[in-house]
Amino acid sequence: MFKKILIANRGEIAVRIIRAARELGIATVAVYSEADRDALHTLLADEAVCIGPAKASESYLNMHQIISAAVTLKAEAIHPGFGFLSENSKFANLCEEVGVKFIGPSAKVMDTMGDKINARAQMIAANVPVIPGSDGEVYSASEALEIAEKIGYPVMLKASAGGGGKGIRKVTCKEELLPNFESAQAEAKAAFGNGAMYLERVIYPARHIEVQILADEYGNVVHLGERDCSLQRNNQKVLEEAPSIAIGHTLRGKIGAAAVAAATHVGYENAGTIEFLLDEKSGAFYFMEMNTRIQVEHPVTEFVTNVDIVKNQIKIAAREPLDFTQDDIKITGHAIECRINAENPKFNFAPSPGKITDLYLPSGGVGLRVDSAMYQGYTIPPYYDSMIAKIIVHGENRFEALMKMQRALVELEVEGVQTNTDFQMDLISDHRVVAGDYDTAFLGETFLPKYLSDEDIANGII
Amino acid sequence: MFKKILIANRGEIAVRIIRAARELGIATVAVYSEADRDALHTLLADEAVCIGPAKASESYLNMHQIISAAVTLKAEAIHPGFGFLSENSKFANLCEEVGVKFIGPSAKVMDTMGDKINARAQMIAANVPVIPGSDGEVYSASEALEIAEKIGYPVMLKASAGGGGKGIRKVTCKEELLPNFESAQAEAKAAFGNGAMYLERVIYPARHIEVQILADEYGNVVHLGERDCSLQRNNQKVLEEAPSIAIGHTLRGKIGAAAVAAATHVGYENAGTIEFLLDEKSGAFYFMEMNTRIQVEHPVTEFVTNVDIVKNQIKIAAREPLDFTQDDIKITGHAIECRINAENPKFNFAPSPGKITDLYLPSGGVGLRVDSAMYQGYTIPPYYDSMIAKIIVHGENRFEALMKMQRALVELEVEGVQTNTDFQMDLISDHRVVAGDYDTAFLGETFLPKYLSDEDIANGII
Repeated sequence: MFKKILIANRGEIAVRIIRAARELGIATVAVYSEADRDALHTLLADEAVCIGPAKASESYLNMHQIISAAVTLKAEAIHPGFGFLSENSKFANLCEEVGVKFIGPSAKVMDTMGDKINARAQMIAANVPVIPGSDGEVYSASEALEIAEKIGYPVMLKASAGGGGKGIRKVTCKEELLPNFESAQAEAKAAFGNGAMYLERVIYPARHIEVQILADEYGNVVHLGERDCSLQRNNQKVLEEAPSIAIGHTLRGKIGAAAVAAATHVGYENAGTIEFLLDEKSGAFYFMEMNTRIQVEHPVTEFVTNVDIVKNQIKIAAREPLDFTQDDIKITGHAIECRINAENPKFNFAPSPGKITDLYLPSGGVGLRVDSAMYQGYTIPPYYDSMIAKIIVHGENRFEALMKMQRALVELEVEGVQTNTDFQMDLISDHRVVAGDYDTAFLGETFLPKYLSDEDIANGII
Repeated sequence: MFKKILIANRGEIAVRIIRAARELGIATVAVYSEADRDALHTLLADEAVCIGPAKASESYLNMHQIISAAVTLKAEAIHPGFGFLSENSKFANLCEEVGVKFIGPSAKVMDTMGDKINARAQMIAANVPVIPGSDGEVYSASEALEIAEKIGYPVMLKASAGGGGKGIRKVTCKEELLPNFESAQAEAKAAFGNGAMYLERVIYPARHIEVQILADEYGNVVHLGERDCSLQRNNQKVLEEAPSIAIGHTLRGKIGAAAVAAATHVGYENAGTIEFLLDEKSGAFYFMEMNTRIQVEHPVTEFVTNVDIVKNQIKIAAREPLDFTQDDIKITGHAIECRINAENPKFNFAPSPGKITDLYLPSGGVGLRVDSAMYQGYTIPPYYDSMIAKIIVHGENRFEALMKMQRALVELEVEGVQTNTDFQMDLISDHRVVAGDYDTAFLGETFLPKYLSDEDIANGII
């Protein structure tokens, strides 16, 4: 096992990794920007190194600074967390070059799954269902038009190198296709230096279902069941749960097997998530993309499986084989996560950084976990993501989990900044959410307009 | 189910009960003394009633005040927590008289198990092994002498109404018997108005093993495995774990069956704990006493069984049958609890009340729970118990649990008062504790003398 690792991240995920490492007896090195001198990850780690100014591009994205910190302090491995450098194959390669283990999959697999046309082709080869669409790259608007006619409107035009909503267009009729193809391609060229486009049918209504997998270097691949992350605003997840109310035992087996097949086919190693869209009526599911890193919502899976995913990431990177098989994985009870953000839901969710003057984090009792990097007196800097805590609950069943989340949100107190706590409380109290009857469009198209007052809407909010 | 309950307690257990009630959709009434206006249980409950001055005898032990608060605010039941009125059969009777359900066993059963000679006789009748000793009350010192000769020294002289260490004497030879019998009896008469004495052999070395049971009014009695609470100082538990390293599958079945037989025999209802002494070498175990209430250390059992004991107490009181059987109870992993007290271990564990100026409670990750009534800025009053938090961890195995406890204790920060955090850290790092190789005498006789410096000892500390 490693003696020391470096955590190339900040916020709650950095703290989460420091805790896992410490429980494994591994010393930790934190890296921090000038804005994060008093951040919890900086304070908690055994050693901490300043890697640059507040701006992420000069600190948390500064590969050479981070790698030189690892080498200087003799960290044997780097955990990238999520975001920042976590899916950057160049960084993974640089780590390998200096003999520091990157805790994640190989650069090669990251590249394969990062190029969406390529990922789609790999999934087809692995017999994993993909969304009906073009057979690889679409070279012209006229070719796109031909395929769209065949699969039927609406369709999605997507850039192969896409991400962050760039290079993507929804096209509802043939008249819209030509102009959208050109603008999406131009956007992709500008953003990624790669204008390769492809096309998929729109699956609607749909649930966002993702399957967590763990794979070691000895060919063992195990899935830990699914998470339902359909409650999203602008493609940002807001609340996640496990298991999905839309998935029964048989479908879980099928979609889990598809995820395992996908990971196996590309020779995946470490923790990863295969995202699918599920057509709830037919039970058909389609590969969307693979996230080659730990995810924000991993704790719901940890609660229902009792598997520590972050510890397993470290163990896998240290060349240990998985110490369980698929048969050992049982889904017990129901878990829900609410993301608490420093933001103002009544003002278009504008970030609300600032000093936390008073803080009470819910705690105690059975089946409650709070992952956070907050403490009383801490100042949330304006430079990074607005997520400040994850409240995760585990109940015997979904109803108990909802009741538990309610009690946790009642207890939570964050003074000094605006948060989305009330918004989350309203969301889990909505009858559609209580019934589990929602899809990816529900939050943005049904819940939010009702949530905001006429006045809010008149003021142009949302 | 009840619509509203009153919690006749304070501190973390009151908070624990408020949380459980809230998760069951039950409104809560807190009662508080004048010293507890700003206590967390006062702030968290839906309603709160001041029941008198700081002194417990005028507030938390003031039966009439508490019952009248329940009646006035239409609470249908009262949860007594532990300590205070929790084992007071008169209080349970008073509740019954005014039609408020006492969340616990009947007054009759509390009386049966509270009288130790009677409890011993009941256990013999239930075929539960008791410590070899007198057959009921011992009426004179000469009778005691006769029995002591038979069972062999050392023996314990005990008052039937005993408690809190009063009316108890260890006798190592026959010369000591007469004077000790007289002084113990006089002490018992003065303290309890009852001079009935009995006599037991001293079991040494021994482990303190206790079995958690849950029993409903329909005759269902289930045990949730054992807790090992051998790490004690002056008969006060310091650290508890489940399962016990000294108990294998077969012995667990036997001791669990004995606990179930004990509870069944006396018609027990609600949560209770049967305490045993275990002679680790022979595997023989002996009934010590029954606690007819929730216990401080219940969370370790909740972690390894995934059963919420407090919620079950409320459900049982609301006449619901247990929704699981003995076969459903599986012991998973290993849990450890450290009691964090506001006290100075280097100064004979003198209580250290005061204002908490800075607080960080460990949180996050897999298998960590902190039950506490502390918050930053809270002032710990000097009038009550010094326990301010319970840190409970759950690992796949005992080693992981110990590592987790270590990381939790590293994170814990309580400024403004003295705490036993470092003492707990040293305790869990001791090689005997790491190996699980300890008995009830270990902490006081082996660990503590080594823990204190020569200077401490020279200063007369301990």
